[in-house]
Amino acid sequence: MFGSVLIANRGEIALRIQRGCRRLGLRTIVVHSEADRDAPYVHHADEAICIGPAAAAQSYLNQTALLFAAEVSGAEAIHPGYGFLSENPGFAEQVEAAGLTFIGPTAAVMRVMGDKVAAKRAMRAAGVPCVPGPDAALGDDLDLARATARQIGYPVILKAAGGGGGRGMRMVESEAGLIDAIAVTREEARRGFANSAIYIEKFLRRPRHVEIQVIADTHGNAVWLGSRDCSLQRRHQKVLEEAPAPGLDQDVLAQIGERCAEACRQLEYRGVGTFEFLVEDDAFYFIEMNTRLQVEHPVTEMTAGIDIVEAQIRVAQGEALPFAQADIVCRGHAFECRINAEDPDTFVPSPGVITAWELPGGPGVRIDSHASSGYRVPPYYDSLIGKLVVHGANRAEALDRLRIALDEMRVEGIATNLPLHRRLVRDAAFIRGGVSIHHLEQQLCGSGKA
Amino acid sequence: MFGSVLIANRGEIALRIQRGCRRLGLRTIVVHSEADRDAPYVHHADEAICIGPAAAAQSYLNQTALLFAAEVSGAEAIHPGYGFLSENPGFAEQVEAAGLTFIGPTAAVMRVMGDKVAAKRAMRAAGVPCVPGPDAALGDDLDLARATARQIGYPVILKAAGGGGGRGMRMVESEAGLIDAIAVTREEARRGFANSAIYIEKFLRRPRHVEIQVIADTHGNAVWLGSRDCSLQRRHQKVLEEAPAPGLDQDVLAQIGERCAEACRQLEYRGVGTFEFLVEDDAFYFIEMNTRLQVEHPVTEMTAGIDIVEAQIRVAQGEALPFAQADIVCRGHAFECRINAEDPDTFVPSPGVITAWELPGGPGVRIDSHASSGYRVPPYYDSLIGKLVVHGANRAEALDRLRIALDEMRVEGIATNLPLHRRLVRDAAFIRGGVSIHHLEQQLCGSGKA
Repeated sequence: MFGSVLIANRGEIALRIQRGCRRLGLRTIVVHSEADRDAPYVHHADEAICIGPAAAAQSYLNQTALLFAAEVSGAEAIHPGYGFLSENPGFAEQVEAAGLTFIGPTAAVMRVMGDKVAAKRAMRAAGVPCVPGPDAALGDDLDLARATARQIGYPVILKAAGGGGGRGMRMVESEAGLIDAIAVTREEARRGFANSAIYIEKFLRRPRHVEIQVIADTHGNAVWLGSRDCSLQRRHQKVLEEAPAPGLDQDVLAQIGERCAEACRQLEYRGVGTFEFLVEDDAFYFIEMNTRLQVEHPVTEMTAGIDIVEAQIRVAQGEALPFAQADIVCRGHAFECRINAEDPDTFVPSPGVITAWELPGGPGVRIDSHASSGYRVPPYYDSLIGKLVVHGANRAEALDRLRIALDEMRVEGIATNLPLHRRLVRDAAFIRGGVSIHHLEQQLCGSGKA
Repeated sequence: MFGSVLIANRGEIALRIQRGCRRLGLRTIVVHSEADRDAPYVHHADEAICIGPAAAAQSYLNQTALLFAAEVSGAEAIHPGYGFLSENPGFAEQVEAAGLTFIGPTAAVMRVMGDKVAAKRAMRAAGVPCVPGPDAALGDDLDLARATARQIGYPVILKAAGGGGGRGMRMVESEAGLIDAIAVTREEARRGFANSAIYIEKFLRRPRHVEIQVIADTHGNAVWLGSRDCSLQRRHQKVLEEAPAPGLDQDVLAQIGERCAEACRQLEYRGVGTFEFLVEDDAFYFIEMNTRLQVEHPVTEMTAGIDIVEAQIRVAQGEALPFAQADIVCRGHAFECRINAEDPDTFVPSPGVITAWELPGGPGVRIDSHASSGYRVPPYYDSLIGKLVVHGANRAEALDRLRIALDEMRVEGIATNLPLHRRLVRDAAFIRGGVSIHHLEQQLCGSGKA
């Protein structure tokens, strides 16, 4: 049991975690860079400690400064939030070595999940479905490559082992093109990444991004809290999320959810986590696990009726989960819009002073934000300045409320992506539900449209 | 069916009703006095019409101006909100005579409920328990008076028929004091109110104020949506409300709720309404029915998961209730703090410009307010500038969240009653739950304490 928590993060999530700590009667210590010194959430904390200059490398990523701040403030636990050091197993180890509680899983589990091949193996062992394809690189045996591709089923994708971010990949529609594609991709990989190793996987044409929120305690209990759909992305950054993921086969979903919970038990996972999947035609393909709290956790809180941050802190204190799987009843539907300080056309960050900050409200509307009128958005960090979350009895009601709330919201002094969200909630395909991860970029981010 | 609604009110409820209308795709027409011309909620409406000078008698109570505004704007229905003309049967009649829909019950039912004796008779007929005592004034027969008092049970209270607001009342502990008390009260009534008629009723020493929210359609369906406790009052003005009312016998409550719904059916009531009771030792005593939307409706919305304003508009359109009694499952607990622009010690209104308006947020927090930074609170109307509503999985969680939210909230430029609310949520008796209607004035409004 600990009585105080150092929050090793900033912005809206530093405020969110404070709220969870205060609910549990814990003393809160917020660290901040010189740039965040005057942010209101800093002054809400019981103690605030400056840990360095604006640049994150010298403050929020500065492990020595964070541990020093924990020592001088007498903090007994550290909550890493999301981003920054939240998925750094070395930091988790240092925190535990200093005799403090790291509010997250063990470093060992974080290492497994941080390695894509190891994570995939662990998932397969737990019965969680992964993208079909061997766990090893393609060899020189072309007959074997043909057999593998046939087994996976076309279309397949060839990926340079050293690639990433969309580079070094080639889709193959049928066996006729396979051998040439292997040669070309291998040559590109050799030239582009100085590594000619390539992998083969099933190619998903228009997958959705669906994720399962889990929470596990140190007593062997693990529960999944429903699904989220986060397909609306721009350059792999989520823009708008919802819970539950609409239109899924509920039996399939329940089976996947139970396997995620079972994987937590097998891994002796503790804390909150998210299993991310690509989903096509009701088939789930594991892509990665996030071993931390996620930005979009509020949509699950609003449907499951559970305070995820509070539960996360409780299990870190060694408490057993206060609910079993049968207690989890999701009610209604929720959406979250990430409100970013950025130009709605170019997506260039738009730091500066907020001169007007008028928030929507009323039934089903929740705001998670550290901003207010007069707040200066610093240019050093990500551009998220708040989350507009709405809940309704069903998807249609929630979507109506979201549309109304977006229309009511007014931010002046800086540019925001509110115009993009306002277009999104009027997009016919999104209103129908179940769009793919390509939808936002292909349909809504064209020039002149944003 | 109507396609447009004129909102005959101002402030937070004018904004709340707009949100409900927009959800249903209805055009909104907001009327405003000259003093409210620049309020942001006015500009959110599809159309805004100035109906007169600041004084309510010349604007929000000006029936001719309201009906003229409805005519020129082509409004097909009028929502009266609460206060102002919301319980004026004459206005309801005029609205209907003009061929518009009045979003509320019929004038006939409003008249019954507006007359305390008629309302009590109607309730007794429907099996709703009232404060024990005859429906008629005491006569000159002192033996009959003694017998009546004995039948009611001591203590009893004598009330001047012409009194009100706490004047012209005298409590009698036992039969020994009855006859003298009758003589003195009658004489006071004659001198004070020029009407010597007095009534006798059971005296409740420390009652709670508990109310039942109902909604009924025009197809004979009526449902009750759970209870609220509004015992925290100052000079008969509610300050902080919660749902459900804590610590009640659930069987007794269910019986009362069902009788309220049955009374609606007998009265052919339509729309939303509230049955108000005094409650002592799990016994309910009807005091009055409010035939309109109430300020505190959000605590019921948050526990029942129903949008009351939307449902109210739907039944006014002739739709059948979309839920039956069995569908009403209350979840968790909710509180509402009325945030008033007033001095926290003297309760004197504090109009002026809001220079800082920083709102709490996060899980379970809802804000209903028309205010924002830069908003000028006019001196002409009631001092309510917003409602802070919180929900939690249970009363303890909701109360913790309320405490945290109150601590986060910051209003500058005007005085507010936030300090009173912050004291209230730390008051041991309130935390236990079930305080009487005298608690706030006796324990928390003492000099120097507020």
